[in-house]
Amino acid sequence: MRIISTEKVPEECRNVIDVKYDNLTDEDFKNAEILLTWPSRVNKELISKMPKLKVIQTFSAGVDDLDFSVIPPHVKVFSNAGAYSLSVAEHTWALILALAKGVGTRKRTIVYEITNKVLLILGAGGIGSEVARIGKTAFRNYVIGISRSFKKPEWFDEKHSIAMLREKIGEADIIVDTLPLNKETRGILNYDLLKNVKQRAIIVNVGRGETVDEEGIYRLLKERPDVRFGTDVFWRKNGREDFYNTKLWELENFIGTLHTAGAYGNDEVMKRAMFIACLNVKKYIDKGIADNEVRREDYV
Amino acid sequence: MRIISTEKVPEECRNVIDVKYDNLTDEDFKNAEILLTWPSRVNKELISKMPKLKVIQTFSAGVDDLDFSVIPPHVKVFSNAGAYSLSVAEHTWALILALAKGVGTRKRTIVYEITNKVLLILGAGGIGSEVARIGKTAFRNYVIGISRSFKKPEWFDEKHSIAMLREKIGEADIIVDTLPLNKETRGILNYDLLKNVKQRAIIVNVGRGETVDEEGIYRLLKERPDVRFGTDVFWRKNGREDFYNTKLWELENFIGTLHTAGAYGNDEVMKRAMFIACLNVKKYIDKGIADNEVRREDYV
Repeated sequence: MRIISTEKVPEECRNVIDVKYDNLTDEDFKNAEILLTWPSRVNKELISKMPKLKVIQTFSAGVDDLDFSVIPPHVKVFSNAGAYSLSVAEHTWALILALAKGVGTRKRTIVYEITNKVLLILGAGGIGSEVARIGKTAFRNYVIGISRSFKKPEWFDEKHSIAMLREKIGEADIIVDTLPLNKETRGILNYDLLKNVKQRAIIVNVGRGETVDEEGIYRLLKERPDVRFGTDVFWRKNGREDFYNTKLWELENFIGTLHTAGAYGNDEVMKRAMFIACLNVKKYIDKGIADNEVRREDYV
Repeated sequence: MRIISTEKVPEECRNVIDVKYDNLTDEDFKNAEILLTWPSRVNKELISKMPKLKVIQTFSAGVDDLDFSVIPPHVKVFSNAGAYSLSVAEHTWALILALAKGVGTRKRTIVYEITNKVLLILGAGGIGSEVARIGKTAFRNYVIGISRSFKKPEWFDEKHSIAMLREKIGEADIIVDTLPLNKETRGILNYDLLKNVKQRAIIVNVGRGETVDEEGIYRLLKERPDVRFGTDVFWRKNGREDFYNTKLWELENFIGTLHTAGAYGNDEVMKRAMFIACLNVKKYIDKGIADNEVRREDYV
């Protein structure tokens, strides 16, 4: 199968698949059956050049940026979910602990303890499972998972579907949102739900900005200075994620990083993630199946 | 044995020892053999009122604030080392991870990975051991300890005396200083030593400010923007720890919290720590020995 990539891939990729990325000609596009790319690269023009396309493998974990309307229904899409899990899980704990200990406030801030607390995780895929593992092993957390499926069920003390979220949110000291953005998850953490959180709750979002209702979290943090919120992901405004244009920065019980959790500026992590995407393509070629097939109906 | 405390102790203390703290009379001081207190309370006047004093048990983990010159040589001093270990270890990891992930910078900062890195810990008492445990279990660190003794040797892959510090500091990705301040440790992390740290080293101090040479660390951070330093402890100026009067705050590769790691503002942690001090007094009364006897020669 002919494979092309819109990006330069690490050398190791060439050891496992025959992928071309440099000096791509119209002929290369015409013959390619598999495309490795970032979601934002996919548009009508690109797709129209690729009549034989069967598979899109993204380098990104999330595919909410992908314009499914231009992708023919028979083309399978595989995400790179899990490829950045370790890095994002470390980042999640950086935000949790920074909030708990007042890091970055330059004031004497009341410290919250983390050990033996209840950790609620939304989304139990690669990231959620790593966050659970760290909480369980390092901080002896009681871990409650809310997810459609559980990649590593062994790290969760309780496993529930999303229907239990309203009941469980009031039991948690630490709430971590690792959800992808899709029809079901948009605005799921709204004020009506969030108002039920415990005293001194810590809330962290490393999923997608829009899974949290912006006005809702702002209102909660204003009303409840004991609650602390940290995020690595922001809300899209005028077509792109807007780190600065949010009132949250005014609040002392808020902390933010600018969507750097995946691998920002870190070649080592980025290369590893791209290699994982290549390995998944190899799996597809060898076995006709691969990991992380995207359920189109979640997005369209 | 008559026991008094200069502070109100938690109710649970009264279940294990007979300690008086309210409305203390001259008679109470005169008869007291055991004193529970903060180091800063101990002065000539207090000691002169206590002719029968045999034991001082501090509520604090560190005793570098204690004026040994006013304490008769036959009086035993026990610190509360370890009582805040869990809280300080969590705080240590908050600083390590915040530095690694650029939390608090409000800029897009290159993220460093933590997993599988080499963690060097100076001081392997209560705090150092907990820091090691978290690194080992959560982040699969290779842990090197530099210490006089090891409270939990099982969490260390290598155990060395302080003589090996110069050799080992160049092997570490993460360096944690949990040292008490005494004659041996003052200024131990100076420029001449620190200049040997690896590319992208993360250095954290939760021991005492003066174990790090202030000019030395400033020079290192200026010269090496890839190195990141975080501290919860600051240098004493005009007789007290001065959080603000240091040039470090100008630097982007520096982060600080204002000596809040122990239990700042957290009644739960503080009560538990005071109770641990009371339990140690009980141990002394029951067995004639207790934990954390201070080696006076380390300080005088």
